[in-house]
Amino acid sequence: MFDTIVATATANGVGAISIVRVSGKDALKLSLKLLKVNNLRPREAKFAKIYSVNGELIDEGIILYFKAPNSFTGEDIVEFQTHGGFSVSNLVIENLLNLGARIAQPGEFSKRAFLNSKMSLSKAETIQALINSRSTDSHKILSRQLEGELGKFIDELRGELVKTLAYVETCIDYADEDLPSDILSSINSMLDKNIQKLSDIVEVSSQRKGLVEGFKVAIIGKPNVGKSSILNALLKKDRAIISDEAGTTRDTIEESLLIGTHLVRIIDTAGIRDGKSNVENLGIKHSLRVANEADIIIAVFDSSRVEDKEDEKILEILKNLDKKVIKVINKSDLDRKLSSNITGIEISTKSSLKPLLDELKKYLDSQNYDGIMLITTRQINATKNALESLKRAKFQLEESVLELFAYEINLAIAEISSISRPFERSEILDEMFSNFCLGK
Amino acid sequence: MFDTIVATATANGVGAISIVRVSGKDALKLSLKLLKVNNLRPREAKFAKIYSVNGELIDEGIILYFKAPNSFTGEDIVEFQTHGGFSVSNLVIENLLNLGARIAQPGEFSKRAFLNSKMSLSKAETIQALINSRSTDSHKILSRQLEGELGKFIDELRGELVKTLAYVETCIDYADEDLPSDILSSINSMLDKNIQKLSDIVEVSSQRKGLVEGFKVAIIGKPNVGKSSILNALLKKDRAIISDEAGTTRDTIEESLLIGTHLVRIIDTAGIRDGKSNVENLGIKHSLRVANEADIIIAVFDSSRVEDKEDEKILEILKNLDKKVIKVINKSDLDRKLSSNITGIEISTKSSLKPLLDELKKYLDSQNYDGIMLITTRQINATKNALESLKRAKFQLEESVLELFAYEINLAIAEISSISRPFERSEILDEMFSNFCLGK
Repeated sequence: MFDTIVATATANGVGAISIVRVSGKDALKLSLKLLKVNNLRPREAKFAKIYSVNGELIDEGIILYFKAPNSFTGEDIVEFQTHGGFSVSNLVIENLLNLGARIAQPGEFSKRAFLNSKMSLSKAETIQALINSRSTDSHKILSRQLEGELGKFIDELRGELVKTLAYVETCIDYADEDLPSDILSSINSMLDKNIQKLSDIVEVSSQRKGLVEGFKVAIIGKPNVGKSSILNALLKKDRAIISDEAGTTRDTIEESLLIGTHLVRIIDTAGIRDGKSNVENLGIKHSLRVANEADIIIAVFDSSRVEDKEDEKILEILKNLDKKVIKVINKSDLDRKLSSNITGIEISTKSSLKPLLDELKKYLDSQNYDGIMLITTRQINATKNALESLKRAKFQLEESVLELFAYEINLAIAEISSISRPFERSEILDEMFSNFCLGK
Repeated sequence: MFDTIVATATANGVGAISIVRVSGKDALKLSLKLLKVNNLRPREAKFAKIYSVNGELIDEGIILYFKAPNSFTGEDIVEFQTHGGFSVSNLVIENLLNLGARIAQPGEFSKRAFLNSKMSLSKAETIQALINSRSTDSHKILSRQLEGELGKFIDELRGELVKTLAYVETCIDYADEDLPSDILSSINSMLDKNIQKLSDIVEVSSQRKGLVEGFKVAIIGKPNVGKSSILNALLKKDRAIISDEAGTTRDTIEESLLIGTHLVRIIDTAGIRDGKSNVENLGIKHSLRVANEADIIIAVFDSSRVEDKEDEKILEILKNLDKKVIKVINKSDLDRKLSSNITGIEISTKSSLKPLLDELKKYLDSQNYDGIMLITTRQINATKNALESLKRAKFQLEESVLELFAYEINLAIAEISSISRPFERSEILDEMFSNFCLGK
C-alpha cells in the first residue's frame, strides 16, 4: 500500500453530508485515533463521534471502513460521512494531516485504483466523464461504457491480434518458410475486418464527441447582425436547467443549454455577450477561429441590410468547413434587403427562435448513437495509432516481411491496450507457448 | 413511518461522490427495484449496480440501508453513494420519483428526525449551523452544542422548574394554606439563580452571535472617504480563504473574510463596491441602516479634507450606538486637514491596513467565549420569554398568588422546553404523583 492520502470526496459547498476519504497504509490507524475506538468492522456503517487530535469533539457521523483489497483504491479506505459545509470536513482533514496523512492530488484515488489493478484506464476515464456529465445523452453513452462494452470490444480485438502475433512469431522463430496460404488469407481478412471496425469507431467518436461533452456551437457573423440577441434568447429559454460551472475552469467563457436531451455549449461568447467589447476585433479572424473549434455553426446574416464583403467572406469560410452549418437570416421582421442568393432559416429575436431551435434539435437528434464510442481524445488517438499500425501491418504481410508485420501488430496491441491497461509482453509469451508451434 | 422522500444529501457540484438519500415507509422497497437485489442488510456497505426503471444501468456505487428506527430520521433510510456530478444523482432521483417517492422539502429529513424523536430541535439547529459554519470560532461553539452542553443546561433548569411547579400545584390543589416559609425562600433563591443564568446567557448570546454567524461589519462614512478602497484592501488580504456563497442566498450582497479564527461579514457592500452606483443615495440614512445591522462599525473619515456636516452627523450616529466602533482616519499619507478633534486609527490604503486589522483582531479575540451559547434567534427569543415569565413568577410569589405563579412557571417551562423539545404536560403530572403531597 502507498502512503496515506486524504481528501473531501463530495462537491464543495453547503449540503447535508460531506465525505472525507482516507486511503493508504495508515488509513485505519489514523482514523481510529480520531474516533477513539479500537477497531472498525469492514463495510459496517458505524455511527461515531469524531474527535480532534486534542480530544475536542469535531462532529459525529457515519464511518465506513473498506479493508484492502476490497475497496475503491484496493488499499485500506476509511470514509467519514460528516455534516456538510466547509468547517467540519476541513477540520477532519486537518487533524488527519496532523497525524501524518497528506492531501491527495486530483485524481490520486483513481490513479491508485488503476495502479492496484482495481480499475482499467478507460473505466477511470468513464467515471471522470460521468461525474462531469450534464445531459441524458452523455449519461447514456457513459453508462454503456461502465457496463464494459468498450472493454469487451478492445479485449476481442486484442485477443485476435495477440493470437495472430503468437502464430506469426512462432513461424519467424522456428521456420524460414512462408506462411501457408490459408492462414495468410485468414490473417488478411482479420486485418480487413478490424481496420474497418477501428475506422468506424474513430470516425463516429470524433464526429459525435458532442454526445459526451456537449456539442460546441459557434454563432458567427459580422457585427450587428444580432449574434448576442440570438445567444441571449437561446439562453433565456432554459437558463434554469444548466448551471455554468464548466466556464469557470476553462480559458474561454462558454454558456451551456439543454436542447431536448442534448447538451449544447456555446463557445467563446465572452466577446458576443459583452456589449462593450470591441466588436471590430470580432471580425473574420475571430469567426474562423471559433468555427474551427465548433461542432455546429450558426451563421447569422442581417435581413435588413444588403450583404457586404464581410458577409461574403463568411460565406466563403462556410464553404470550406466540414461541419454542420445552420444559416440564419435574422431580423426577418424588417424589410428584406439581403439578396435572395443568401438562403437560411428566417428568424426574428423579437418574435421567436423556434425555427432555429427546431433545426438544431433535428440535427442533434440525428446524432444520437447506440453503439460503442471512445470518450476521450487520448482514447481516440490511441485507436488512430492502432489503426495506422494495422494498415502498415497489412502492407508488410503482403510484402511477406513477417518481422515488420510482427512489429506493427505489436505496436497496434500496445496502442489498443493502452486504452484500458498497459501492454504486457508476458501475455504474448503465454499465448505463444500454450499454442506451441501450432500447425507446425 | 411517513411517505417516502428523496433528495441529494451532498452539495451540488462536481465531486467524486454524491449521496442520494431516501427515507420513509417504502424507502427499502423502492430502492431494491433500482438495485435488482432481493434485500439489503442493515448498515452493510454494499457495492451494487443501480438500474433505471427500464433496466438500463445508471451507475454503480456503495449502497447503505439503515433500518428504522436506527437511522437519522428514525425511518427506513437507503443511501445511494453514486459517482458525483449532476447527471447520475439526478437520474437516480428521477427513477425513485417514478416509483412513487417524492422530492423532500428543505430540512424535511431533520424534521422527521425531530418528529420521530431522534433529535431535539436545538440539535437540529446546531447541525444546520454546523453545516453553514465557516470559521473555527463557530465550529468550536457548535461542537460544544453537539456534545449537548446547552441541552444539559436546559434540562437542569427545566427539572428545577418542573419540581417547583409540581410542589406548588400540589399545594394549590390540596390545601388552602400559604407555602411554608423555608420552602418559599428556597423557591425564591432558585428563581433568583435562574433569572441570573438566563439573563447572562441571553446577553452573551445576543452580543456574541457573531461567533457563530460571523461578525457583521459595516463600513460607513460620507462619499469619497475611501470606503470601497478599504473594503477591497481587506478582501484582497485573504480572498482565497472564504468563498462567497452566503451572498447568493441573501437579499443584500455581503463579502466575507477570515481574520484569525474569526469570520467577518461585511454587510451591504453592494453600494460600496460598485463605483457606478449613486453615491448620493448612500448618505446618512444608509449609514444609519447598516450601522444598526452591524456588530462592528468602521467609521471612515478623510484626513485630507476639513470635516463637514456629513462627518458630524456620522459622529452623532456613532455616539448613540451601543456597538463596537472603530474610527479610521483614511488617507493618512496626505496632509492632514481634518481637525484633531476627530481621532482614530490612521491608515492609508496605499500603504497598509495593518493598524485597522490589528484593532479588528484584538476586538474579535476579546469576544472569544468558552461558555454555553444560544445559537439562533428562535432560541434567544424563547429564553427571553422564559426569563420574563420567571420575573413575573417571582412577583406573583411575593404577592402569594400561587395560581398565577404556577401559570408563569408553566409558561417558562414551555418556552425553555421549546428550545429542545415540545412541552409535555404529562411530565409534570408524573413528577406530581411521584412526589405525592410532599411535606404534607
